[in-house]
Amino acid sequence: MSRLNEKLLGAWSSPFTNRVQMALNLKSIDYEFIEVNFYSNKSESLLKANPVHKTIPVLIHDEKPICESLIIIQYIDEAWTKNGQSILPSDPYDRAIARFWAAYIDEKWFPLLKELGKESGDETKAAIVRKIFEGVGLLEEAFVKCSKGKEFFGGDNVGYVDIVLGCFLGWIKVTESMAGLKLFDETRTPGLAGWAERFVSHNAAKDIVPEPHKLIEFYMMVQAAKASTG
Amino acid sequence: MSRLNEKLLGAWSSPFTNRVQMALNLKSIDYEFIEVNFYSNKSESLLKANPVHKTIPVLIHDEKPICESLIIIQYIDEAWTKNGQSILPSDPYDRAIARFWAAYIDEKWFPLLKELGKESGDETKAAIVRKIFEGVGLLEEAFVKCSKGKEFFGGDNVGYVDIVLGCFLGWIKVTESMAGLKLFDETRTPGLAGWAERFVSHNAAKDIVPEPHKLIEFYMMVQAAKASTG
Repeated sequence: MSRLNEKLLGAWSSPFTNRVQMALNLKSIDYEFIEVNFYSNKSESLLKANPVHKTIPVLIHDEKPICESLIIIQYIDEAWTKNGQSILPSDPYDRAIARFWAAYIDEKWFPLLKELGKESGDETKAAIVRKIFEGVGLLEEAFVKCSKGKEFFGGDNVGYVDIVLGCFLGWIKVTESMAGLKLFDETRTPGLAGWAERFVSHNAAKDIVPEPHKLIEFYMMVQAAKASTG
Repeated sequence: MSRLNEKLLGAWSSPFTNRVQMALNLKSIDYEFIEVNFYSNKSESLLKANPVHKTIPVLIHDEKPICESLIIIQYIDEAWTKNGQSILPSDPYDRAIARFWAAYIDEKWFPLLKELGKESGDETKAAIVRKIFEGVGLLEEAFVKCSKGKEFFGGDNVGYVDIVLGCFLGWIKVTESMAGLKLFDETRTPGLAGWAERFVSHNAAKDIVPEPHKLIEFYMMVQAAKASTG
C-alpha cells in the first residue's frame, strides 16, 4: 500500500493526464502516478475506477475516484482551497469565461488537430488547417482579454485555461512538424507565441509536457500495433 | 430599454434554454426572456452575444454575455450565492459527481435520443435503443447514489443534475411516444419514474418543461421548413 492518499491513473503521453499533473503541481500535492494502458487491454484498476467511460485520467482521492480531466481540475481547486493560488479565477464572470475557453479548446479546437492527423485528402486537409487557424485567431483574442496584459491566461499566475491549452503544447509541436505549419507564430499571434514559451518553462509544467520526438515515437508505435492486430 | 439587468436569449422549445430558466427560477432572479430564431436566419443580437458558437442560450448580465448552458448555470450559482439554495452541492466530491453526470447526460445520453429521431434503419434503431436503456440504467444508479434516499438528485432540493436531466423531460416524452418506448418506468427504474413526476410539478420547472404535443408540432414545422428549402 502506498502512503499517499492521492493516486493518479494516467499515461505520460496523454495531454488530459498531463493537465491534471499540472494542477496537482500548482497545488503542491504529492501523488502516486500509476501509468495505465489505455489503448488496448485496459487495466482492471482503470475499468473499476471509471466504469462509465473507461478512460484516463482518473484521480483517486481517499479511495474515491474522480473522472474527466476538466472535472478533476475543478475538484482539485475546490478540495485544496488552501494550497497556493486558486486555479480558476475568483470572479464569477471570469470563471465563466475560463470555462468557456476550456470547453472550446476541448470540444472544438483540439479535435481539429486530431482530425488533421487522420485525414489524407489534400482538399479536406486544407479545409481543416483553415479551421485550425481560425481557432488560433480566437485563442489569441482570448489570451489578450484573459491575461489583461500579464503573462498567463490566469494573469500573473498559471490558471485553468493555461493548463487546459498548455497540456497540448507537445502535440501541437508534433502537428507543426508533421504538417509543416507554425501555429503559434510571433508575428501573427505574438500573445500565444510568448505565452507558450513561458508556459513550458513554468515549474508546474516543465517536467510534464512531453518532448515532441517522444510523442512521435509513441504515435508510430501505436500505429504499428494497430496495423499488426488488423 | 428594459429595467432588468438580466436578459436570456433563448427559445421555449430548447431544453438547454429551459434549464437556464429553471436555474434562474431556483435563484428567484427576474429576467427578460428574448425568444430568438436559432435554426435559420439567426438574429443579430444572438450573433453579437455568442460569435463563437452562434447558439442559444445566452445569458446577458449587466451587458456581459455568458454562453453554454452548463457554464451559465454554474455562473448563476456563483454570482447569486445569497439567493436561495446552492444549485451545485457544497461538498467538492459531490460537486465533481454532479458535474460528471451532467457531462454524461449532455455528451453521451441525450445525443442518443437525437440520433434515434434521425435514424430510419430498423437494426441501427434497435442498437441505439439498447444504448439508451443502458444509459437509463446508469442514470437510475446515479439517482439512487446522489439523492441518498431523498426526493431529488440534489437531495431535499432540486439541484444541478435535476435541471440538467429534467430539462429533457418534454423531449423524452416525445421520444417515448414516437418510438413506442417507456424510458423511465416504475418497475425497472422506480427512482427515475418517481423523480420525473416530482420534478415536473416543482415550482422551478412546472411552467418551463414544454408539453410534448407542442414539441411535436414544433418538430414537424422545422422538418417542413427544411424540406421546402431543400
